Amino acid sequence: MGNDPALRLPGVTALIDAALAEDLGAGDVTTEALVPPTAEAEAVLRTRLAGVIAGLGVAEAVFRRLDPQVVFEQGVAEGEEVVAGTVLATVRGRARALLSGERVALNFLQHLSGIATFTRAYVRAIAGTRARIVDTRKTTPGLRMLEKYAVRVGGGHNHRFGLSDGVLVKDNHLTVVGSLTQAIRRARQKVHHLLRVEVEVESLDQVREALAAGADILLLDNMSLEALREAVRLAQGRALTEASGGITLDNVAAVAATGVDFISVGALTHSAPALDIGLDFVSVSMP
Amino acid sequence: MGNDPALRLPGVTALIDAALAEDLGAGDVTTEALVPPTAEAEAVLRTRLAGVIAGLGVAEAVFRRLDPQVVFEQGVAEGEEVVAGTVLATVRGRARALLSGERVALNFLQHLSGIATFTRAYVRAIAGTRARIVDTRKTTPGLRMLEKYAVRVGGGHNHRFGLSDGVLVKDNHLTVVGSLTQAIRRARQKVHHLLRVEVEVESLDQVREALAAGADILLLDNMSLEALREAVRLAQGRALTEASGGITLDNVAAVAATGVDFISVGALTHSAPALDIGLDFVSVSMP
Amino acid sequence: MGNDPALRLPGVTALIDAALAEDLGAGDVTTEALVPPTAEAEAVLRTRLAGVIAGLGVAEAVFRRLDPQVVFEQGVAEGEEVVAGTVLATVRGRARALLSGERVALNFLQHLSGIATFTRAYVRAIAGTRARIVDTRKTTPGLRMLEKYAVRVGGGHNHRFGLSDGVLVKDNHLTVVGSLTQAIRRARQKVHHLLRVEVEVESLDQVREALAAGADILLLDNMSLEALREAVRLAQGRALTEASGGITLDNVAAVAATGVDFISVGALTHSAPALDIGLDFVSVSMP
Amino acid sequence: MGNDPALRLPGVTALIDAALAEDLGAGDVTTEALVPPTAEAEAVLRTRLAGVIAGLGVAEAVFRRLDPQVVFEQGVAEGEEVVAGTVLATVRGRARALLSGERVALNFLQHLSGIATFTRAYVRAIAGTRARIVDTRKTTPGLRMLEKYAVRVGGGHNHRFGLSDGVLVKDNHLTVVGSLTQAIRRARQKVHHLLRVEVEVESLDQVREALAAGADILLLDNMSLEALREAVRLAQGRALTEASGGITLDNVAAVAATGVDFISVGALTHSAPALDIGLDFVSVSMP
Amino acid sequence: MGNDPALRLPGVTALIDAALAEDLGAGDVTTEALVPPTAEAEAVLRTRLAGVIAGLGVAEAVFRRLDPQVVFEQGVAEGEEVVAGTVLATVRGRARALLSGERVALNFLQHLSGIATFTRAYVRAIAGTRARIVDTRKTTPGLRMLEKYAVRVGGGHNHRFGLSDGVLVKDNHLTVVGSLTQAIRRARQKVHHLLRVEVEVESLDQVREALAAGADILLLDNMSLEALREAVRLAQGRALTEASGGITLDNVAAVAATGVDFISVGALTHSAPALDIGLDFVSVSMP
Amino acid sequence: MGNDPALRLPGVTALIDAALAEDLGAGDVTTEALVPPTAEAEAVLRTRLAGVIAGLGVAEAVFRRLDPQVVFEQGVAEGEEVVAGTVLATVRGRARALLSGERVALNFLQHLSGIATFTRAYVRAIAGTRARIVDTRKTTPGLRMLEKYAVRVGGGHNHRFGLSDGVLVKDNHLTVVGSLTQAIRRARQKVHHLLRVEVEVESLDQVREALAAGADILLLDNMSLEALREAVRLAQGRALTEASGGITLDNVAAVAATGVDFISVGALTHSAPALDIGLDFVSVSMP
Repeated sequence: MGNDPALRLPGVTALIDAALAEDLGAGDVTTEALVPPTAEAEAVLRTRLAGVIAGLGVAEAVFRRLDPQVVFEQGVAEGEEVVAGTVLATVRGRARALLSGERVALNFLQHLSGIATFTRAYVRAIAGTRARIVDTRKTTPGLRMLEKYAVRVGGGHNHRFGLSDGVLVKDNHLTVVGSLTQAIRRARQKVHHLLRVEVEVESLDQVREALAAGADILLLDNMSLEALREAVRLAQGRALTEASGGITLDNVAAVAATGVDFISVGALTHSAPALDIGLDFVSVSMP
Repeated sequence: MGNDPALRLPGVTALIDAALAEDLGAGDVTTEALVPPTAEAEAVLRTRLAGVIAGLGVAEAVFRRLDPQVVFEQGVAEGEEVVAGTVLATVRGRARALLSGERVALNFLQHLSGIATFTRAYVRAIAGTRARIVDTRKTTPGLRMLEKYAVRVGGGHNHRFGLSDGVLVKDNHLTVVGSLTQAIRRARQKVHHLLRVEVEVESLDQVREALAAGADILLLDNMSLEALREAVRLAQGRALTEASGGITLDNVAAVAATGVDFISVGALTHSAPALDIGLDFVSVSMP
Repeated sequence: MGNDPALRLPGVTALIDAALAEDLGAGDVTTEALVPPTAEAEAVLRTRLAGVIAGLGVAEAVFRRLDPQVVFEQGVAEGEEVVAGTVLATVRGRARALLSGERVALNFLQHLSGIATFTRAYVRAIAGTRARIVDTRKTTPGLRMLEKYAVRVGGGHNHRFGLSDGVLVKDNHLTVVGSLTQAIRRARQKVHHLLRVEVEVESLDQVREALAAGADILLLDNMSLEALREAVRLAQGRALTEASGGITLDNVAAVAATGVDFISVGALTHSAPALDIGLDFVSVSMP
Repeated sequence: MGNDPALRLPGVTALIDAALAEDLGAGDVTTEALVPPTAEAEAVLRTRLAGVIAGLGVAEAVFRRLDPQVVFEQGVAEGEEVVAGTVLATVRGRARALLSGERVALNFLQHLSGIATFTRAYVRAIAGTRARIVDTRKTTPGLRMLEKYAVRVGGGHNHRFGLSDGVLVKDNHLTVVGSLTQAIRRARQKVHHLLRVEVEVESLDQVREALAAGADILLLDNMSLEALREAVRLAQGRALTEASGGITLDNVAAVAATGVDFISVGALTHSAPALDIGLDFVSVSMP
Repeated sequence: MGNDPALRLPGVTALIDAALAEDLGAGDVTTEALVPPTAEAEAVLRTRLAGVIAGLGVAEAVFRRLDPQVVFEQGVAEGEEVVAGTVLATVRGRARALLSGERVALNFLQHLSGIATFTRAYVRAIAGTRARIVDTRKTTPGLRMLEKYAVRVGGGHNHRFGLSDGVLVKDNHLTVVGSLTQAIRRARQKVHHLLRVEVEVESLDQVREALAAGADILLLDNMSLEALREAVRLAQGRALTEASGGITLDNVAAVAATGVDFISVGALTHSAPALDIGLDFVSVSMP
Repeated sequence: MGNDPALRLPGVTALIDAALAEDLGAGDVTTEALVPPTAEAEAVLRTRLAGVIAGLGVAEAVFRRLDPQVVFEQGVAEGEEVVAGTVLATVRGRARALLSGERVALNFLQHLSGIATFTRAYVRAIAGTRARIVDTRKTTPGLRMLEKYAVRVGGGHNHRFGLSDGVLVKDNHLTVVGSLTQAIRRARQKVHHLLRVEVEVESLDQVREALAAGADILLLDNMSLEALREAVRLAQGRALTEASGGITLDNVAAVAATGVDFISVGALTHSAPALDIGLDFVSVSMP
């Protein structure tokens, strides 16, 4: 578990503790009333729907927080695509820990698997093109690192992680600066030299201006397929291209066919439905 | 703002800070490069889809964290149902604060409004019945208080907030205890006297046993409409009834018609799609 | 130790760390000056007065925080009633850890054993009646979970843990709402369905009004024995009864004899004197 | 309030927040159900017993945390000795804040006033002697700074605040070092030069050895009055003297009469009963 | 003050609190003994040596944390170059706050001004060349954001802020990957598209290989002036160049004259001596 | 490692975590792209200059935080004086952990070794005299405990750790109190009895006044050698003496020769240059 990549993400251990504290409050009164502290149990995590599994290491860590001796045997690999009814893992440990940790473990696992499943659908839809599916900063507050991890598990790629590891000049910035050319130059001048400069453009005129001013990446926002194709042609060898805005599973293949390098999809992280997963006790023993 | 109910929820201020830290990292390099520290701007928050709005106070607090002098004028009331294109609020303040806080403010607002919108649909579907739509503990880790708030804004009611403010004996507990009757008695004996005892049942036999053992509330899990009706009849005057499992917008009215007191819906908080909302700069000034 | 129930209470580990930080400040200058880092010692925890012991696991955890290899052998069981001079535990480990942790370990142990001892006296005083001794929210700031644990160790029962896991309508609430009937109805309507409604009453008229309005529990505040008896009679089969106010070891048996279900005693947690316990070094070795 | 000395103590603001979080949990369900958010109220804090008042600033800060606009008018001064029934303060503000903060404010105020009251009794008992009543490190975990503040309010003096701002060689240290002389020399050699060296002694022989070795202060532990007198005589002009162990209100005057400089009393902070104080609503308004 | 750029850096407010807690411990015993709480004072911050001033906003914030009403009037601007004896600021407020905050305020101010002064010397030494002086990650643990701020105040530029906002392939990475070409390709393939790829090279052969593999920036480590010139010539128009290793005030101008784009200097942040600055009381009043 | 004295200092573990978080941000993008998670490596820490080594335990703890299985073998002892090129330690563990932790480990080690090296020079300069070199509170914010530890490793002694474990009346205090005699008396009266009273004096008249008033220690500030000698003579047997102000390696021996007990040097902690230390990979394996 110590090497699970999700657990090595910054802040994840603290998030697990916060989620447990949020659920446990002053204690699990039901379990404490009904279950002897020494009772041991075995349970299975089983998916009730088909999907791509992400977050097994996080789920394990939740149980381990409540019972350091818990045994968690994965039935499938992280990132595996499974059918409904698959046993994802078997968990053995103190019955109290399994009961008190169940909901939090499932909340993580269902949320992350939902994102991985949703991402995989987009990735599959553009298979065979040169484009990459990338996520956005439209993440659930506090869960960004985990959600971007789930995107990777699903086969997608990450965009920048936040406002400090990438320059992206957006329309609201332009309202302040006035000129696209000016904005690109000022960004290049001020920002440290390990960062590229990406700029949001909405028309082919802006594409030309951004290229002339030396933009490294063009964010092609809400453009028609035709305009995307022309933008890709203009940028060839001069800048990378990223399509964005209004991307759905229905149109993503057509967008990818325009030749863009990246397609960013906010819905991956803000609107993926949870994958339905349950925990069922298999046996109980009283040592 | 100080009286906004969402901001008085435990942990919300810390969550806002964590979300800003997560997004800002070492700083908003784009905005710091392009926008003078003294520039002032006015922007509007506008919904791109119809829905029920929740989280305006949280969005305001995000901006205020970055600029204590920000002026945030709501265009609609919290909980109001709006059409696409509605201006939800006008924000005036330091341009840097508006640009750096935009994404976090929208991430909160879109997520909470998504939940409120989804909840409202369920509430409307059962209008005229005696049933209440209630949420579950299937919430996003770290956001439970806010998500349960959004359910209330949408017209739903809350179930317990965590494991310590309610007794709910579930099937996995029964695997340990063995007998439903025994479980109910032990819970009543051990748990403090201000809490009722709710128990999950899956058959009419279990309904009868639970009633005989003195359960206060029956969680009727995945029962047919017919069985629900019979359970309601049996429980009449002796225990409250809550239907759960497999509830959708398509079947919720039929479930409510069985006479149950409560219908709990996990999807309210784990699968509501975000409501699409944007922030557009209206004007900029350099004092 | 990992399974010690006191250590599984929310916040206890953090409280132990805070208590050690509070005492150690920039370091234990005396011990660091006098005791070689490799010196090992054996010491005993001995009570200087008779009492009920609570907090042995907490005391162990204090020493373990300073020396993870410490060996802590309990001489008595948690909750045991002991005579003056009893060895409660033998502790072996780094001499520096024992010396630097001594005061904090004792401060916890003396405080919790004081509460358990005081509670046991009340419990014994009402033996043979149907009443239960319960605690209140009159606890030392920051120590509620531990103090309520010590009450349980002493044989008492807990009342609600805080303001969110129980409804208790008190006289100051009535000043706002105006009517007892109205308050009970509003509480029942607004509060989630897993909570009962308790209401503070001070006269038999209020008892009758509360019962008519459907209160689940009556908090009978500062009533005469006669009035308590009549309240119990009126409530029979309709609501639980709790006596409160002015309860002492002298009158608690008489109160219990009135037939009330619960007797709440604030003094258990706010005025129990500490139980005098010391730590004595038995031997020292320099490996 | 900002200048209230208790609030300037390290950690007090965090302690107030922790105490509120501990009590509020997921929220004050009773008050939120019954009291409109806009309701305003006036209440009085009234002592039900005579005593010395400490913690008014802390109580005010508790309410202010819930309602920054609260008006808190002290009826008596911090440290004042009052009779039963005295109005200690009038509080005006949001009714919800007064109701939700009441218990925490009182828990602080009752505990600190209890310590101040108990301390004042000891101080008064030795009036006219040269001795000072000082506290110990036998404090409630997490509350040391506030409890030592209450001792000062009661007219007592503080001993060291923790293990780093004073050298005190105790019997358990001697078990390790072997010789009193050696211990004093090693402490003097190793510890920084702004600290004095105090040493615990239990016999007149030890007194003589400690003086010869250059101890700055003698902690005379559990000595008879006769031995105390002799120790004082020996130490005259060479070291300060502190009596400790088994001090009660009954014998403290006799101890003081022996001529010791300090008398340390653990009971001041570990066994002072709370002072009974209540909060009563006076009026309510709905703006 | 609220707009002071240093105070808007992530973590700075928490760092100020930590520094005060570190110094104050259980309280400033000297000041509390000697200075009445109501005493007001005026003091000046005066530099005892010539230098570039950085951290005035931080110093002000330190005092304000202890006295929110403090008046802090800057005598010079942040970043100004001053002669010995210059009054940097006048501070008026509670005498206790000035005395207790003095050391922490000076510790920040001296450290940051030391860095700014040292940086300014490097910047001046290369004036007229195209090169920029940049800092490194060789910063004091916990102070990176402030130290990099001081570099900017001194006229230098920042390199990446940490390991996540820039790709820098170093010699130890190459030991793992084996080939420079392979390392550059893999980095480009895996890392998000808003980041450039910089690679450390130590010979002209490596320069050629890195350019052929598509590196965006070359870190020319410990190269002779001649080799630097040749590397610059080879990279012209294909990659940016950064000289590093063994840079001193004596050789920095010669390095800049080779035509490199950037010169990174670890000593800016790890070896700048503090600038000697004092605080002197001017007047005291007792209101 | 668990017994490493530096790691037992208060706050050090939290500081290590903060330093890693500061450097890692959203993750080490270079290492994650280039190095397989299972790769193992061996590396050596080697000093590039001669000096006194401090912080090996801290460096080890940094790596262990990223890889709990890391093997860290010290090549030299903490506090050892080494020549340039010495291997300080060999580190074996996950290659990712070594690469991602390298900079933070070195930042600690270089800073602390710099202080130890600088201190050793002062200590050596006064060898044979009775004086001790002591540090000051002029430390880097947040690093005081570690920096004072490095002073001890270098052979120096500590002054007080903060404002609560020592009384030092400085010139600014005198501006408030007015009279030296008054200040000393008030301090003695108010401060707890385990603390001595030190007072800053600048003339022989002040020396005489301070001695007459009963000061325990004289801080002789910026006095001539002649005045120091006279002050030492006056204080003989009545108070300890500490020289301060303008101490350099050039004049420290002369100052020590005056007979003072202590010489405090701020530069030890605020201006010691870092000791240049590097980490080089020796071998890599892919299990």
